[in-house]
Amino acid sequence: MAPARTRLMIDSARRMLRHGAYRKVAHLLEGMRPGDAADFFESITVQDRRRLAELIGRDALVHLLGALSVEVAAETFQDMDDPEFVTLIGRLPREDAAAVLRFLDAERREGILAKMDVSASDAVEELLAHPAGTVGAIMKPEAFALDETATVAEAVEALQRASDSGPIFYIYVTDKRGYLVGVVSYRMLLLARRDTPLGSIMKSDVSSVRADEPQDEAAALVSRHDLVAIPVVDEDHRLLGVVTVDDIVDLIQAKATEDIYKMAGLGSDDRVFCAPSRSIRKRLPWLFVNLLTAFLAASVVGLFQRTIQAAVILAVFMPIVAGMGGNAATQTLTVVIRGLAIGEVTARDALRAILKEGSVNLAIGAILGAFMALIALLYKGNPYLGLVLGTAMVCNMMVAGVAGAMIPLALRVLKIDPALASGVIVTTFTDCCGFFSFLGLATLLISRLAT
Amino acid sequence: MAPARTRLMIDSARRMLRHGAYRKVAHLLEGMRPGDAADFFESITVQDRRRLAELIGRDALVHLLGALSVEVAAETFQDMDDPEFVTLIGRLPREDAAAVLRFLDAERREGILAKMDVSASDAVEELLAHPAGTVGAIMKPEAFALDETATVAEAVEALQRASDSGPIFYIYVTDKRGYLVGVVSYRMLLLARRDTPLGSIMKSDVSSVRADEPQDEAAALVSRHDLVAIPVVDEDHRLLGVVTVDDIVDLIQAKATEDIYKMAGLGSDDRVFCAPSRSIRKRLPWLFVNLLTAFLAASVVGLFQRTIQAAVILAVFMPIVAGMGGNAATQTLTVVIRGLAIGEVTARDALRAILKEGSVNLAIGAILGAFMALIALLYKGNPYLGLVLGTAMVCNMMVAGVAGAMIPLALRVLKIDPALASGVIVTTFTDCCGFFSFLGLATLLISRLAT
Repeated sequence: MAPARTRLMIDSARRMLRHGAYRKVAHLLEGMRPGDAADFFESITVQDRRRLAELIGRDALVHLLGALSVEVAAETFQDMDDPEFVTLIGRLPREDAAAVLRFLDAERREGILAKMDVSASDAVEELLAHPAGTVGAIMKPEAFALDETATVAEAVEALQRASDSGPIFYIYVTDKRGYLVGVVSYRMLLLARRDTPLGSIMKSDVSSVRADEPQDEAAALVSRHDLVAIPVVDEDHRLLGVVTVDDIVDLIQAKATEDIYKMAGLGSDDRVFCAPSRSIRKRLPWLFVNLLTAFLAASVVGLFQRTIQAAVILAVFMPIVAGMGGNAATQTLTVVIRGLAIGEVTARDALRAILKEGSVNLAIGAILGAFMALIALLYKGNPYLGLVLGTAMVCNMMVAGVAGAMIPLALRVLKIDPALASGVIVTTFTDCCGFFSFLGLATLLISRLAT
Repeated sequence: MAPARTRLMIDSARRMLRHGAYRKVAHLLEGMRPGDAADFFESITVQDRRRLAELIGRDALVHLLGALSVEVAAETFQDMDDPEFVTLIGRLPREDAAAVLRFLDAERREGILAKMDVSASDAVEELLAHPAGTVGAIMKPEAFALDETATVAEAVEALQRASDSGPIFYIYVTDKRGYLVGVVSYRMLLLARRDTPLGSIMKSDVSSVRADEPQDEAAALVSRHDLVAIPVVDEDHRLLGVVTVDDIVDLIQAKATEDIYKMAGLGSDDRVFCAPSRSIRKRLPWLFVNLLTAFLAASVVGLFQRTIQAAVILAVFMPIVAGMGGNAATQTLTVVIRGLAIGEVTARDALRAILKEGSVNLAIGAILGAFMALIALLYKGNPYLGLVLGTAMVCNMMVAGVAGAMIPLALRVLKIDPALASGVIVTTFTDCCGFFSFLGLATLLISRLAT
């Protein structure tokens, strides 16, 4: 079985690496499939990667480079000698070359482009002109397309000639101005007579994306309509390239990681085994923002020091009210942010979403608040403590629902990424509101609570 | 452009629905592509869905049903009359029929199966026999396969005959015992002479998955090797079916939602616009568990009531220490859980992961702790308060890193889903440890802190 053999090879590569047998590891990597070799390559240190890159045969290295994540590729090859790097980049598919060059600093990128073949560097520069995050930046610039007047026999011949470039999933059909007018599948070619023009067998209702649309748009279309490739057009519907499903799969994976990461305030390249200094540098700012908002919540507690002095038991229950609000808010936030990400909710649904989440959390707050009031009564024998605790809980849970739905939707309208900023804003809300409602109510009833 | 037109259609469908014009909406949905109609269908109430399902033409309804998420499909059609439901299910591809039936309760499922055609119900029951979560449960049971002795011409004929079933991405090649021995692409067929046997042009190094392997395994292979379909075999390598990339895309999306949801303690079918009662029922248990662990943390505070009584300022700073530990722990947890999900980390890397995350958080804790000590000194003019605060912060951040890395890895070894249980365990740890270190140190230095 392939997976078991792969695992064996990776285990022995790891063992060899530990003993410094770089040459043997390089040889092993040459025999592995690019995807597997890339997985291994991404799990080792950058020093080891650079050393191995010098030893692996050029053919295998080009395939490996094509399968690596661009971050890792750029990190590994950024200090490679110019002539060698130029050769390597020149042999990559254009879109992979552009992706790696995009990650280098501008000076080095210009240097490499200047040393490349003019035809190659022109094609790559055209791709680099599309802003990062747009469909144009990830498309393959060579969509396989034929004129609508070409016959089935001519299409088959053209496919035979094209056989050494990447996989071709569909034959796109253009009119004489280069506008996309239809699509033909292999199956249609097999079924049709050899002298039929493509224009008369093509499917003319083709899904396409514009090069300047966000990549998410292409991912949504591919996943909604079960496509394996989607053609890319310009604003006049002229065919520019194609995005294939393997890129979409990578995109969806990366996007999911990014969303999960953003909610925890992590940078997209923070990994379990990246350099500790990178993790520290990336996490510190977000934790610092959280610290400042924590001071805000603490200053709410500070307003009520005399109340706490009079009934220290309040300090014991205080974190429960705030913490439960935070947990409920995280649930609401997660549902709303994910709903925004997969297109289930839009800002126009705001009122409905706020009402739904507010009422759900009100109900949960009533149940848990009653439970907590009972516990407080049993523990301290004081019904007023239970009353304060239960009421504060209900208030704070409702705030959690309303703020948890409202804030990400408002951020979306303001074009701020809700996944990034919602969490810290909403939990500051629930912390402050939890402390204020609990300690505020306690201050009103202090004569019944003081011990 | 297709997307703009789709948006217009969806907007007018929504408007018509508001005015109760169900018949018009049904008509509009019949004219939309199944994926678009399904998106709209999933955004409306179950009552509206059931009403529309009665009005949409059978052909369009079968396509719509195939494109819906199984949860929504089962919810919409569970109360439909038996004969009509049997007809509908009978017209779905086998794997879609099995997916919907899997979501119904056992009694209803048996009832439907008993009323279906024997050949259809046999095929569906065979699929239902594969446990949920395995590759077998999502495969299409009709892989297009030919014997290795078949010629190219015979393959083309067979493809022409097969033309009305689902998309065929590859032609799989089996030997006379039905064992998978190779794969042929359309391109190979076009390039080869018509009398060549498939056995002599096929690629014999085929990636495959076993039907009893987890679905994640198929997703990882497809994404690593940029495939559009992967054949499914039994333990003897006999060809059973195929999983196509559109299913893998759905799987990756669903898995990402599931991971994000689990970390917030949400059920997988909790949506912004699902019934509030479902959200309440699903969220309450997890919040209740959190409440119990919050009591544990509160009881740590309870141990130090006399210390707080002597220096109420401690109650003000107390939530900061615990909260920052919780935030740092969430970052570590997210990196480790995502690393486990995408296969970057395994339990064997545990020690390295714990050391890395512990040291990262120790460094961050030292920086933030020093900052907090300074603030406390400026605010209260008491260096001992700063000392207690800073030291507790450093301790708790380190605990956050160590526990945040250790607990998900330990849960993985114990075969408990780390995404589900790690959060509540780790934050209980950081809450208790934060309160204990801060108030414990304060108790030792109380004579310097009391005001």
